[in-house]
Amino acid sequence: MSILVVGSVAFDALQTPFGKVDRCIGGSATYFSVASSFFTEVDLVAVVGDDFTDEHLAVFKGRNVNLDGLERVPGEKTFFWSGEYGFDLNVAKTRDTQLNVFAGFRPKLHQRHRSPDVLFLANIQPELQMEVLEQCRRPRLVALDTMNLWIATAKEALTRIISKVDLVVINEAEVRQFTEEANLVKGARRILALGPKTLVVKRGEYGVMMITKDAVFAAPAYPLENVFDPTGAGDTFAGGLLGYLASRSEITDRELRRGIVFGGVLASFTVEKFSLDRLLEITLADVQERYQDFRALTHFDDFDV
Amino acid sequence: MSILVVGSVAFDALQTPFGKVDRCIGGSATYFSVASSFFTEVDLVAVVGDDFTDEHLAVFKGRNVNLDGLERVPGEKTFFWSGEYGFDLNVAKTRDTQLNVFAGFRPKLHQRHRSPDVLFLANIQPELQMEVLEQCRRPRLVALDTMNLWIATAKEALTRIISKVDLVVINEAEVRQFTEEANLVKGARRILALGPKTLVVKRGEYGVMMITKDAVFAAPAYPLENVFDPTGAGDTFAGGLLGYLASRSEITDRELRRGIVFGGVLASFTVEKFSLDRLLEITLADVQERYQDFRALTHFDDFDV
Repeated sequence: MSILVVGSVAFDALQTPFGKVDRCIGGSATYFSVASSFFTEVDLVAVVGDDFTDEHLAVFKGRNVNLDGLERVPGEKTFFWSGEYGFDLNVAKTRDTQLNVFAGFRPKLHQRHRSPDVLFLANIQPELQMEVLEQCRRPRLVALDTMNLWIATAKEALTRIISKVDLVVINEAEVRQFTEEANLVKGARRILALGPKTLVVKRGEYGVMMITKDAVFAAPAYPLENVFDPTGAGDTFAGGLLGYLASRSEITDRELRRGIVFGGVLASFTVEKFSLDRLLEITLADVQERYQDFRALTHFDDFDV
Repeated sequence: MSILVVGSVAFDALQTPFGKVDRCIGGSATYFSVASSFFTEVDLVAVVGDDFTDEHLAVFKGRNVNLDGLERVPGEKTFFWSGEYGFDLNVAKTRDTQLNVFAGFRPKLHQRHRSPDVLFLANIQPELQMEVLEQCRRPRLVALDTMNLWIATAKEALTRIISKVDLVVINEAEVRQFTEEANLVKGARRILALGPKTLVVKRGEYGVMMITKDAVFAAPAYPLENVFDPTGAGDTFAGGLLGYLASRSEITDRELRRGIVFGGVLASFTVEKFSLDRLLEITLADVQERYQDFRALTHFDDFDV
């Protein structure tokens, strides 16, 4: 089974209380691809400038990431984001965004990308997410991520694409912003009423809640003594979740829960170092070991009173 | 096995986005006693004025709460707290505090209260918590709660009493305030280094994290579509946890985890109505049923990849 992701490949400048880097590799589709490639083959569709060299492409090397859909536009510069975090690592402050080549991104899928098993529409304009979906033969599972900007500026288009997907990955604050409902469970049910079968709500250091018509699943985040840089945690989480699901023959409540835990485990590695540095060091065995730690973290017995 | 709690019995005025009450029963020891009485016998030590009538005492009626240690002082008024919540129900805004009879509270334990099996020092001045502890023959388990005020104004005394107890129940923000450490796990370890064996960190709607020398346990809060009034949730949680532990022959990691879940379950009922209204309606069977819901909420299988 394979997964297709459409999103950004970027350069980031990052500052956290623990250090800074002036230029490192970032982008939603980058984190997503590397994370999901632990479980499945990934087709990456994105655009970069010619400042994104073969050396930078090395992050994908030796992984199950197919780069046929990664367009490199001569004479253009790659999408650049500069962000800063204070001690509250849940909140990023954007210092600079330079869309560069990404400003004209209108993804045209190759013929061979039009029948993905799982499609992930990373956080890009909702209109582009719709264009991508319309180019595909109906995948087994379609998921999207979004952000506060599109809720504020493109809510109608966002509502349309949400109504077409199976699974939405979204921040807690975005659920409240989108639905204007303070209660998270009620807000989540309103989004489900638009069409998706599954809502996965990211709560930063507090973990994840999944809400479907029939069930609610809540998982804490893996508690870390050293959180270095939260950039990419959400995209890594989505990559782990969707990559895991793409590797399964059926997408059930049971598999969704496992996928959420794998996503959380992968995200917990990402935040331990800048950029993709930690994610690139680990093996599937490391991921499986932390999955077991996660079981110990959350386990409690039935009562006997 | 029995539990002794020393804390406040009070009147509250509450306003939430969902309604208001001008005067209802509150107080840390009140919520704690009612919650722990689901599991064990409770001795309540507190002080009220003569405006706290037999009618108000009815909240304890038919429960395992012994009121011998509840002093009623003629001519005095009961502790009064007035608080307000916005849509972010995690944050209470205090509108008024009238200590009244509580200002002169210097708990003197009856002889028959001096050998409790479990002692809970609810949120009162750390000096008073120490005085109570010094009056007791060493209990099997001593736990305390505290608040930002004492961290700011009585940190030395608070540090002394923390070093004497087995278990600390504390808010996430208070861990950071007390230790001046942004990372919660590191902050928790610093408090453990003072002496307690177990730290239970309350995270409001995000649940609870328990940290001991050997283990970390994280549990989400029970997701509710209707959170009406969060007042007393923390004291109810502590009451469920400690009441459950008092009922067990051994206090192990396994029992601590079960106790935390029972505490969370009881707190999830408390917030569904004003004051103790919901807590007074439910039975142990309701609590056990929601414990099972909580298992379904958090369950995930081992992986098979």
